[in-house]
This record gives sequence, structure tokens and C-alpha cells, in this order.
Amino acid sequence: MATDIRTQALQKPVDVAEYLFTRLRQVGIESIHGVPGDYNLAALDYIPKAGLHWVGNCNELNAGYAADGYARVKGISAIVTTFGVGELSCVNAMAGAYSEYVPIVHIVGYPSTAAQKDGILLHHTLGNGDYNVFANISKGISCATSLLNDPFEAATLIDHAIQECWIQSRPVYISLPSDMVQKKIEGARLDTPLKLDYAPNETEKEDYVVDVVLKYLHAAKNPIILVDACAIRHRALKETHDLIVTSGLPTFVAPMGKGAVDETLPNYGGVYAGDGSNAGVRERVESSDLILSIGAIKSDFNTAGFTYHISQLNTIDFHSNYTRVRYSEYPGVRMNGVLAKVTQKLGKLSIEEGPTPSNEIPQDEIMSGEPTITQAWFWPRLGQWLKAKDIVITETGTANFGIWETRFPKDVNAISQVLWGSIGYATGSCQGAALAAKELGIARTILFTGDGSFQLTAQEVSTMLRNNLNPIIFVICNGGYTIERYIHGWQDAYNDVQEWDYKSLPKAFGAKPGQAQTYRVESKQDVEMLFLDKNFVESKALRFVELVMPWDDAPKALKLTAEAAAKRNAE
Amino acid sequence: MATDIRTQALQKPVDVAEYLFTRLRQVGIESIHGVPGDYNLAALDYIPKAGLHWVGNCNELNAGYAADGYARVKGISAIVTTFGVGELSCVNAMAGAYSEYVPIVHIVGYPSTAAQKDGILLHHTLGNGDYNVFANISKGISCATSLLNDPFEAATLIDHAIQECWIQSRPVYISLPSDMVQKKIEGARLDTPLKLDYAPNETEKEDYVVDVVLKYLHAAKNPIILVDACAIRHRALKETHDLIVTSGLPTFVAPMGKGAVDETLPNYGGVYAGDGSNAGVRERVESSDLILSIGAIKSDFNTAGFTYHISQLNTIDFHSNYTRVRYSEYPGVRMNGVLAKVTQKLGKLSIEEGPTPSNEIPQDEIMSGEPTITQAWFWPRLGQWLKAKDIVITETGTANFGIWETRFPKDVNAISQVLWGSIGYATGSCQGAALAAKELGIARTILFTGDGSFQLTAQEVSTMLRNNLNPIIFVICNGGYTIERYIHGWQDAYNDVQEWDYKSLPKAFGAKPGQAQTYRVESKQDVEMLFLDKNFVESKALRFVELVMPWDDAPKALKLTAEAAAKRNAE
Ligand SMILES: Cc1ncc(C[n+]2csc(CCOP(=O)(O)OP(=O)(O)O)c2C)c(N)n1
Ligand SMILES: Cc1ncc(C[n+]2csc(CCOP(=O)(O)OP(=O)(O)O)c2C)c(N)n1
Ligand SMILES: [Mg+2]
Ligand SMILES: [Mg+2]
Repeated sequence: MATDIRTQALQKPVDVAEYLFTRLRQVGIESIHGVPGDYNLAALDYIPKAGLHWVGNCNELNAGYAADGYARVKGISAIVTTFGVGELSCVNAMAGAYSEYVPIVHIVGYPSTAAQKDGILLHHTLGNGDYNVFANISKGISCATSLLNDPFEAATLIDHAIQECWIQSRPVYISLPSDMVQKKIEGARLDTPLKLDYAPNETEKEDYVVDVVLKYLHAAKNPIILVDACAIRHRALKETHDLIVTSGLPTFVAPMGKGAVDETLPNYGGVYAGDGSNAGVRERVESSDLILSIGAIKSDFNTAGFTYHISQLNTIDFHSNYTRVRYSEYPGVRMNGVLAKVTQKLGKLSIEEGPTPSNEIPQDEIMSGEPTITQAWFWPRLGQWLKAKDIVITETGTANFGIWETRFPKDVNAISQVLWGSIGYATGSCQGAALAAKELGIARTILFTGDGSFQLTAQEVSTMLRNNLNPIIFVICNGGYTIERYIHGWQDAYNDVQEWDYKSLPKAFGAKPGQAQTYRVESKQDVEMLFLDKNFVESKALRFVELVMPWDDAPKALKLTAEAAAKRNAE
Repeated sequence: MATDIRTQALQKPVDVAEYLFTRLRQVGIESIHGVPGDYNLAALDYIPKAGLHWVGNCNELNAGYAADGYARVKGISAIVTTFGVGELSCVNAMAGAYSEYVPIVHIVGYPSTAAQKDGILLHHTLGNGDYNVFANISKGISCATSLLNDPFEAATLIDHAIQECWIQSRPVYISLPSDMVQKKIEGARLDTPLKLDYAPNETEKEDYVVDVVLKYLHAAKNPIILVDACAIRHRALKETHDLIVTSGLPTFVAPMGKGAVDETLPNYGGVYAGDGSNAGVRERVESSDLILSIGAIKSDFNTAGFTYHISQLNTIDFHSNYTRVRYSEYPGVRMNGVLAKVTQKLGKLSIEEGPTPSNEIPQDEIMSGEPTITQAWFWPRLGQWLKAKDIVITETGTANFGIWETRFPKDVNAISQVLWGSIGYATGSCQGAALAAKELGIARTILFTGDGSFQLTAQEVSTMLRNNLNPIIFVICNGGYTIERYIHGWQDAYNDVQEWDYKSLPKAFGAKPGQAQTYRVESKQDVEMLFLDKNFVESKALRFVELVMPWDDAPKALKLTAEAAAKRNAE
């Protein structure tokens, strides 16, 4: 290729694809998820060149879920798909990331700009010459769209997309036409890292809000802290932690906020979800005269079917883009600065203690002679077995309600999709999370999925093996869609699933000898033995466990939530 | 529920869901594909009541592909998904059906109209109160959208959607809010079947076009017929067949038109795809002075990379919505009526014979002592083994180019996605096609997929087993994405896939003893023996074959097409 005048004017010419992947590397991404396709192949050549690892998923939806899991551990992720067929296969994963504030850079390999301009009848088009349909489909589920059709704009558009992705903590969409991959752009820009800091709040405004918060806080008799998902997703965990520790206030988490708070702190009180709360929690939270609510998402499944009984008059809401004190709103005042200053200026607070969650299994479960693994027994028991820093992924179904009853050690990263709730997510997400864990030196990634959910995305176990990952996978075998049975169709055939020989899958997916260990546990005794088994616990292999539970058993919180959902659906 | 005034005014009150499923049954659908979700569960109760069978797929993308395959055999199909998570998971399948003119009724279980109106924060939403995002996403890939928010309009909207689906031969989108399922509407309408006929052409206009066509046809010295996909998808096969038989003109098919023409007819000449044509075909077609082109879709993969050399001055195009004679266009003149009249009035034509494709394997392949199963050997050999009425599904990859070299017996239904080209499609499609075949008493459904493609949707083998289907599945094991290697990245790792123990999957997916038979063929000799094996050929079990081929081998037409694609991508 002859160097043209434009290229000569560049200080440090780099190819568009190199620029893009270097930027991704700079923000902390070490692995790229996705599936090849002829419109992205030339771009894939740049991945190893930029020091990145190509994952190579089995399909794009799974790749999207994996990218989501990776981002929840590493902070941000990227996925490469091909035009039309590839990108549309992962629309649901991107929508989930949008809904749950997970930053994923979605790069779509496009036909050449010439082909687009001429509207020619290429494969992976709708046959109507329209090359914008797919970008438009993604618009509603992306916080920025950068179409790289012109080398002059490419660097700016790439930088903009990655910045928005990080700051808004949501997916962005970047098109990379095949003929743009090797176009030269200014590489000198790469010497300046992207600015990823949140813009600070306006000082006077922030101070005003802090004063208002402190006024109410000092006046309160029994204030508490309630932490939810947006504290995690909008990166306010440090400020939240400092407030919890410094204030000593009783602190609770909403289900989606699980993992945000150090559950070994003496003032940690458990999960609040209205009628679905941990024992003693509802009473304490609902009798509080001031709730410092950090990053709340009050969705149906996060509140056990809207059974919150908290008055807005007793609430201060901290969010990424506003603060609200009772009914007074302060738009644009981000929580991070406010929380930090409130902590600094706390002064003396009136503290009325809250409940302390135990790691203990309910008395009647212990007394029961029944060998069956019940939901009420398993989840608290799990809490005793988990270790600090574990990554724990729970699927929509009995698992992500059961986990409400699991008290975590320090620094557990809990991943689930309580708002979006797409089943199959957890298995894909586990692949990404386990890879991120490996990159960060985190020892264990543990997945709990249902037999129904696992069937949607089972092949991602293959990708785990291919990438030498060793998560611990529990498939809850309970004969189908138990969560759905509780909503409608208790014994209807549509809530059954085909019975698989789950345990045989790692081998079928190409596990080499010693690369995977499989188990089946059918009784409490089996679980106890498994949890004690050094060969299980200390193994470096992928571990795959069939966890057999009754078809008609569900965590208490799920029963409540399902009842509310059924009622609402019929209304 | 108290019967209200509105209900009392109805002659034969029926529930909305019953109305909907009864209509689907009336247009010939016997099975419904999809995945349950709490917003659609109540509707699923009506499926058996309407005499329909619920398939219960492993995931929604696969269900969408299956519905596509079912529609290509039965004429139309339906899929039920749940709001957000379910529907977005199958966007790619619906886009494929839109692109390739396959009629699928997509029913999405929605939250109640009350919940929508209040914009409440339910699971499966983006958390922004917007309940229209997903319907808008589907708009660009549906030919009608019916949102059933009001019982007064429900019947009309349902009828409209099904009619459009059939007539335009494209997907439609129907929302069914959970509270609408049991609302009463007028069932007396069901006594009148839906009108699904194409509106006839205006007589004077049609006659005019027929005269023009005949004028050129009589003047032509060596006219030919070229049949493509839209002849199938817009239901002009009878008219096309009559023209071919009555005229005796040499007849060819484009790759996407394969299966449209009885290949045992003496005037059938083979596949035309420019430089990728069957032997002798290019010469005959390109030297013709008049091409009657029926239902053409001149996409890159259907023309071996735009290597058609046919002048528009020698072409008459017949389409579903227009006719074009050289450059004169006749909008709105549908092919069916025109072709029928042209056939009636044919008169004497000048016929210059064309080539006759043989069932034979190329001489050098026969002479070769090499035991390896080559692409050049396999596909013609397959043609000798196929039987009349077989359904043959080929995946994007070496398979859907290889099949160009397979001469079919009578009435073979060939299914592939040459324009949309989404891999994973073929396995899902096979489930739907095999079910449709069973309903129609067709004996054999035969799938050819690649090892790479199979990994995207492998679990649908489970759905086949669950529904007692017995297709014959060939997985071409050639160490990864061979088609991609020919485009870019010959030996790059991103074109490898994890090596599975494919044969062990049917059992892992729950095949009962005797329900599945598995094979691995590694040499021509193995193939010959398999094709002769009565226990294989006559079995009523699902048959699963690992068909081992070299990693670096591809059909000739694929090599050409890949080269053109690589060039275009770099341009
Ligand atoms: C993609 C998608 N499809 C369908 C649903 C509806 N759905 C929610 S939970 C569930 C069943 C989950 O069953 P399983 O994984 O076995 O969990 P269990 O409750 O039995 O533990 C279904 C079908 C969904 N949430 N997402
Ligand atoms: C959903 C989707 N993702 C990615 C692609 C890009 N793609 C086209 S063909 C192909 C490889 C197919 O490999 P395989 O099935 O093994 O076929 P082979 O050519 O080896 O027979 C890929 C990845 C696609 N067409 N569709
Ligand atoms: Mg289950
Ligand atoms: Mg292959």
C-alpha cells in the first residue's frame, strides 16, 4: 500500500484495528470474547499483536454473557462479532448488560465502506441494501454508537465509545468495516491514556447536599444503610465501605447488592427484600426512621414482589446521577463525592443495633432426618464453605433466590442478573468471570445454575476447557423449571425439561484426561463429604457437580416473589 | 370472572389465546416452538386445548431456527417467547427468516397491560419503564406488528398478522400481554377461514406482460429457464414446474433455488452460479439469448461472488411483486399468474439442448487411491444415495457449497440459508424440519453441518430426542472453520474449534437405549459401507454420524466464492 499524503502527516501512524485494541488493553482488558466471521477476520489478526488473548466462544449469545461476567470481575470487557448474524445473536446479552449497567465494548466487523455505500447484496444482509438496520437495533441498548466509516474520525469515535462505556457503565457499539481495519491513523494519541474519572460534583452544590444529608442523619434515632446494585456498578464501593465502617450503622443489602458489603463486619445485618428478607431484617429496616439507600434498583425480583415497606419520607437515595433527600431531588449530584464527604463529617450518630445474620442452618433443617438436599438447608450451608474472594454466580431460578440466605466471607463477588433475568446467562457469565479471575489471581469461581437454565448455554463449558479455566459448576437437578412452576403450571409438561446426563458433558466437550472432575450429590451427607473432599476442594481441574434437589422445593423468598408475579400477570 | 356487558354481546365468546392458537391451527400449524417464561405461561395452557403440540426448545435462538425449518416444510410456523429476554434471544433467527422470506408467527408473552401502562420496574425490562423498546427492535425484521393491548382489536390484529405473514412470507410479531390471554372476544369469526390467496394481477396488465414475454420468447434462439429461491418462498413452484415441463426448455437452478426443480427431468441442466456452476452449465447459460429468471436473489454467495455473466438485455425477471422484461419494469405484476398464462400460450419454441448433469463422481476422484473423504467425492456420491422426498439441510460452510454438486432425486426439499448465512441455523432448522416431516409422513430428514457450526446450537439434538424425531445428522469434522480459512486466517487459531467427542452427545442429551445410533466415517470405504448398512438406512432411530474430512479441503465453488469475499473485504 503506497503511503498517501494523509499517512505522511501522521506522527506515529497505526492501523485502526491496532489503535482500537491498544485502547482496550489500556483500560484493563486482557482477553477478547467473541466468534469469528469473515467481516471481522482481518481485525482478529490484531488481537495477539496488542497483547490480548482471543477467547473463541461457541456462539455469540454465550460470548455476550461471558463478556458480561468478565466485566463484572475486571471492570470492563469487549466482544467481537460479525455483521448481522453475529451481532444479532447477542442482542439479548447486550440488552442485559444495558439493563444491569455492565460496560461491554461491542465491536462488529462490517462489510467494507464501499459495499455499504453501494448497498450491494452481500451475505448477512436483509437483502434490501440497508446497512443501518442492525446498528439501529442496537441503539436502544447501547449508550454510544461509533460507526468507523472514516479514518479521520476513527480515533475520536473509538475513544468516545470506550469512555462512555466506562463512565455510563453500559454497552457501546462500534462498527469496524473490513476496509478500515488497516487504515492509518494517529497513534501518538495512544500516549495519553483515556480519561475515565467521573466528573466531580460542583463543590457548592455537593456541600449543600452533604449538609442536608448530615442534618437528617444527626436528627435520626435509628438510621440504617441499605446498599444495592448501583453501588457496585457505578463504582462507589470504597465510599460505601468507608461510610459503613466509620459510621457503624446497621447495614443491609438488597439482593442485587449482595457482595457489595463486607458481610463479616459486625454491623452487617443481612438481606433486605421486604417480605423476603433474612430473619429479623424486615423489622429493623422498616422501623428505621432514616434509610441511607445507596444505588437502589427497586425491581420486582429485587424486592420480593414489591413488598418493600419503606417510606420515601424516611429515605435518602444516593445514585450515580442524582441524590434525593425525602422528596427533594438534586439532579447531577453523584453519590461518590457525597458519600465520601458525609463520611468525613459524620460526627456523632445515634446507633440502634440491628440483627446479626448467622452462618447457621435453620434449626428445623438440622433436626430433620430427611436426607434430601433442601433449598432451606443448602444455601446457609454453602455460606460456611465459601472462602474470601470467591466469585459466586447464581442463575435466575431457585439459585439466585437461595443465595439470599448465604452469608458471605469477605470480598466475595456475587454475580447474578436479578433485573434482566435471562436464563443461560450464568453459565456464559461463568466462563468470562473465571477467565477474569485467572487474570487477577483469584482462586475460585463457583457457578450455581439450574438444569433448565444450563440447557440454554451448556456448550460454554467447552470454552472454559479450551481456555484452561477451572470453575466449580453446580447444576441444580430438580427436573425442570421449578421457579416457573411456582408462578404457573405446577405440573404442566411445559415446565419439564429433557433429562440430560449432565455429568458426561465435560468429556463430550473435549476435556482432556484430568482436566475435569465430575460428581453427583443426592443427600446432605453427600454435600458434606464433597465440601470436605480435598480432591474436590483443592483440585486445579474444572469441577462439575450434579446437585440433586426436589422438583417442588424453592427458597422462601422465591415462593413469595412467584406468588406476587402470578398475581400481577393475571391482573 | 363475572361476564361483563361486552362479553354478553358476543355470539361465541372465546379467550384471546384460544382464538390465536385456533387460527394458527387453521393455517396448518400443528406444533408450536419456543421456550416458556412467566409472561407466557398462561398462554401455553391453550396450546393443547387448540389441538397443538408444544415442542419445548432448549433456547430461543434455536427455537427460532427450528420454526424456520418447520415453516420451510409445512408452509408456516409459530414460536412463543417471553418478553425481553426470550424474544431478543431469537432476533437473529427472525432476521434470517425476514431476509430469506420464511413465514413465522412470533408470539411474545408480555407483562400485563396495567404494568405496561404504569411503566413499573419489572424483571426483563431495561429498568427505564419503556415497554416499547423490544417491539421496536423487531419492527425492522417483521412484516407486521400486532400489539394485543385491547380485546376489541385483538381478533382483527391477529388475523391481520397471520395473513401478512403468509402472503408476504416473512415473520410477524404479536405481543400477548398476560392479562389479555383470557379476555373474551368473538369466536364466531373463526368459522370463516382466513383468506390467504394472493390477489390476482389486474387482467389487462397481466395479459400485456404475458404478450411481451411471449414475443421475446418466440424470437429467442436458445432460451433457458433459471429458477431461484423466491420461486419456492413465494409459492410459484407449480407454475414453474408446468412451464419447465411444457416448454421443454433447458432449466437451471441458482444455489438458493436448489430443490425447486425436479432434477430428474430430461431438461434439467444443473446449478448455475457464474464461475461456480456445475460442469458445462456456465457455457450454456451465458450463451443463451434469453433467460427466464424466476425468483432470483443475486447475492454474493448465491452467485459464487458475483460471477454471473448474464446481460439484463437477455433477461426476463419474474418476481412476487414485479416483472421485468430487459429494462422494462411492470410493478405489481406477480409471477404466478404470468407464468401460468405464458405456459398456456407457449406455442412453438426454439430449443437448443443444454448439458445433463450426471450422478457421477468425477473421474479423477474415482481413480484416486486416496482413502480420505474429499469434498469433490462426497457430494456427488451423496446424490446417488438420496431418495425421493428427502429433506436435505445444509449448513453455511463447506456443506452448503458442496450440495451444488449433488444431483437430487424427485421432490427433495433442500434447506439452507445462503443469503443470511447464520451458522448454527442448520441444526435448529433440522429439529423443526424433522418434526414437520413427521407430521406430513415424510420419511427422512438429513442434516449436514460443520463441526464449527454444530457447536453453536448442539443442544437442539436434545429437543429432537424429546420430541421423538429421527433425523440423520452428519457433522463434518474438519478441525474448525474451513470456510473461514479460505477467506482469511488459513492456519490462525481463531479458525480452530475445541475438539468435541461429538458422537457422545446424543446420549449426554438423554437418548434412551435404542433412541440414537452413532457412527464415525473416516474413509470413502466407510461411507460406502454406511450407505449400504441396512441397520443405518432403515433404522427408526436418530442417526448421528461424524463425517471426517480434511481441514484444508473445500468444494470448488466455495474456493471461488471465498476468494471473491476476501478481495471485497479488503477493498
Ligand atoms: C432467555 C430466557 N428464557 C426464558 C426465561 C423464563 N424463565 C425464567 S426462570 C426459568 C426456568 C429456570 O429453570 P431452572 O434453571 O431449572 O431453575 P430452577 O428454578 O429449577 O432452579 C425460565 C424458563 C428466561 N428468564 N430467560
Ligand atoms: C452466527 C454466526 N456467527 C459467525 C459466522 C461466521 N462464519 C461463517 S461460516 C463459519 C465457520 C463454519 O465452520 P464449520 O461449520 O466447521 O464449516 P466448515 O466450513 O468447516 O465445513 C463462521 C464462523 C456466521 N456465519 N454466523
Ligand atoms: Mg430446575
Ligand atoms: Mg468445520
